[in-house]
Amino acid sequence: MKIYKKAILPNGFKASGVACGIKKSQKLDLALFYSGLPAKAAAKFTSNKIKAAHIKIDKQYLKHNRIFQGIVVNSGNANCFTGRLGIRDTLDTSRAAAKALHLNSNKVLVASTGIIGKRLPVNKIKKAIPELVRKLSGNGINKAKLAIMTTDTFSKEITVKFNIANKQITICGVAKGAGMIAPHMATMLCFIFTDANIAQAALNKALDISTDKSFNCITVDGCMSTNDSIIILANGACGNKLIKDGENLALFVNALEIVCLELAKMIVKDAEGSTKFIRIKVKGAKNFEQARKVALNIANSNLFKTAMYGESTNFGRIFQAIGASAIEIEEEKLKVKVSPLKRAEISVEVNINRGKFCATVYTSDLTPEYIRINAEYN
Amino acid sequence: MKIYKKAILPNGFKASGVACGIKKSQKLDLALFYSGLPAKAAAKFTSNKIKAAHIKIDKQYLKHNRIFQGIVVNSGNANCFTGRLGIRDTLDTSRAAAKALHLNSNKVLVASTGIIGKRLPVNKIKKAIPELVRKLSGNGINKAKLAIMTTDTFSKEITVKFNIANKQITICGVAKGAGMIAPHMATMLCFIFTDANIAQAALNKALDISTDKSFNCITVDGCMSTNDSIIILANGACGNKLIKDGENLALFVNALEIVCLELAKMIVKDAEGSTKFIRIKVKGAKNFEQARKVALNIANSNLFKTAMYGESTNFGRIFQAIGASAIEIEEEKLKVKVSPLKRAEISVEVNINRGKFCATVYTSDLTPEYIRINAEYN
Repeated sequence: MKIYKKAILPNGFKASGVACGIKKSQKLDLALFYSGLPAKAAAKFTSNKIKAAHIKIDKQYLKHNRIFQGIVVNSGNANCFTGRLGIRDTLDTSRAAAKALHLNSNKVLVASTGIIGKRLPVNKIKKAIPELVRKLSGNGINKAKLAIMTTDTFSKEITVKFNIANKQITICGVAKGAGMIAPHMATMLCFIFTDANIAQAALNKALDISTDKSFNCITVDGCMSTNDSIIILANGACGNKLIKDGENLALFVNALEIVCLELAKMIVKDAEGSTKFIRIKVKGAKNFEQARKVALNIANSNLFKTAMYGESTNFGRIFQAIGASAIEIEEEKLKVKVSPLKRAEISVEVNINRGKFCATVYTSDLTPEYIRINAEYN
Repeated sequence: MKIYKKAILPNGFKASGVACGIKKSQKLDLALFYSGLPAKAAAKFTSNKIKAAHIKIDKQYLKHNRIFQGIVVNSGNANCFTGRLGIRDTLDTSRAAAKALHLNSNKVLVASTGIIGKRLPVNKIKKAIPELVRKLSGNGINKAKLAIMTTDTFSKEITVKFNIANKQITICGVAKGAGMIAPHMATMLCFIFTDANIAQAALNKALDISTDKSFNCITVDGCMSTNDSIIILANGACGNKLIKDGENLALFVNALEIVCLELAKMIVKDAEGSTKFIRIKVKGAKNFEQARKVALNIANSNLFKTAMYGESTNFGRIFQAIGASAIEIEEEKLKVKVSPLKRAEISVEVNINRGKFCATVYTSDLTPEYIRINAEYN
């Protein structure tokens, strides 16, 4: 397996990015991802009860149809809490892109990220779509990956190439956001493209598994976004024998897990104002969910995060967070190890010694800079 | 009813406070509350799975016995995560106080607050107990209320006097802590004294009701303490007809609610580093718990708290927090009002328009000063 720390689109995919004027800064704010071949799609969305318009539309599309050829993404506006107009704006966006691509109107998924509660400037988007389509190319991914960013300070991208029965499969992912740190401006979005020929059920399963141990294992401030979306498109251009189960699916899942985990870690590393990247491993749990719950409880504790920023060896704060997770704990059996705090990467290992399962969660510290960024933004 | 913003002990109660050397600063760190008459006790403790030694002992005492005459409290050391030695130290403290007061050994409750994971200097406590007993007086409450403080910047105290059938009843409460803001050093403790003659079941019920709408409705940083304890002693010295139910219980509950709510609000006002006192009222819920859940979700959102600090009218952050509370929401029906942000007291009103219940939660903003205080503490 080869891992590249950049986005290299698989066979049959193209992308583009333009500045259509949603962002006042004139930065890129509209991206299109396109597959020349019909691609199977799987997706995961936020469980926040208030969901962006694009999630409502995408879910509806995915209910009736699993084959797509495009994803159009805007940054700078979340199109969330925008009512019926918001829904219509998303539909208009999707249809305008489909029309320009000569596709049926429900073949293009949509995603939005940015400020909540403001109407999407859909006319700017519609006006820019012909240019967006004209600029589609393999290298266009380098514009598209920027056009999905908001407060991100670097683009998140990775490509994995691996073989299944002598056919080289590519999985390429791009993401944006700083975890759940700033849902109004830095919602997490992730788009993954593969030329693998894979059965729909296998694709769904692979995405479930990969998401659970990556995007569901990161937290910046515990704030659940209204726009979080992960979409994978698999267009089969590689021509491999259909991946359904067994060893081939395991190989695919393994590669997809790497893509998701690396992107998830990049998101945490770009957390607003952070100075530390913190890995929290909880061992000895009765199951994975329990281990993750304890780890997330530590990761979401402001006191723990502040102690990490202050390089303060205040283990009481870790015990407090473990106890607050409502998991049964035997104090005598609980072991906590923390790596030296002066470093930029810190590792916390907790053994609750009650079972065989473990989970690893990634988070950042809580800093005055986080507050400055989020207090000043308006 | 008369409300005094200071602690005035009811008939039959005395208190004292000394510096026994737990705090390096030589500040007061040991308090004793004493009732000359046997008093009925009710208590509530943290639901954190990791509990301080004093909670384990008090719970055991309360299981077998509901009549107490003293509470000995130390600050500067939480006696938590201290294993079997910690338990023994708490027992020794309780027994030493009981002996000096000529009481049976299980008549004195104990509470501790301070740093987690360090052995309690029990010999310093035992050495100071004779002095503590000697100094017991009505005015001693003014030392005792200081001796329970840690990072508090002011003492939290209130007294309510009201009549039941021409007998004047007094309820006096003192508390310490900055909510759950700094469990290692500022755990919430609250002690309430009344001369009311009240049935045990009525006392329990009154404390349940009062706690639910006060201490269970405040949050500073969502960190659940290992030491939180509320203890009420009712010694009957007022000589009123036994309060059991009906109107008299309602009068008692009403007074106790005022005591608890005022103390709870003082705790939030003393939150580390805070610049805003924020009241969040959620209306239109299907029940109280649902309303409180939504309110607490807003109150615990770092993004919301940071926006309040920055006086930023970012309502998207409120919607995001409401949606994340996992309550079913109809976007069109949701109404949010926020008072002017330039003031020190801010009021947020959310109407989810799905039912008739409401809850009010109190919280503070999240500031760089909070981080400085908690990052630097070691």
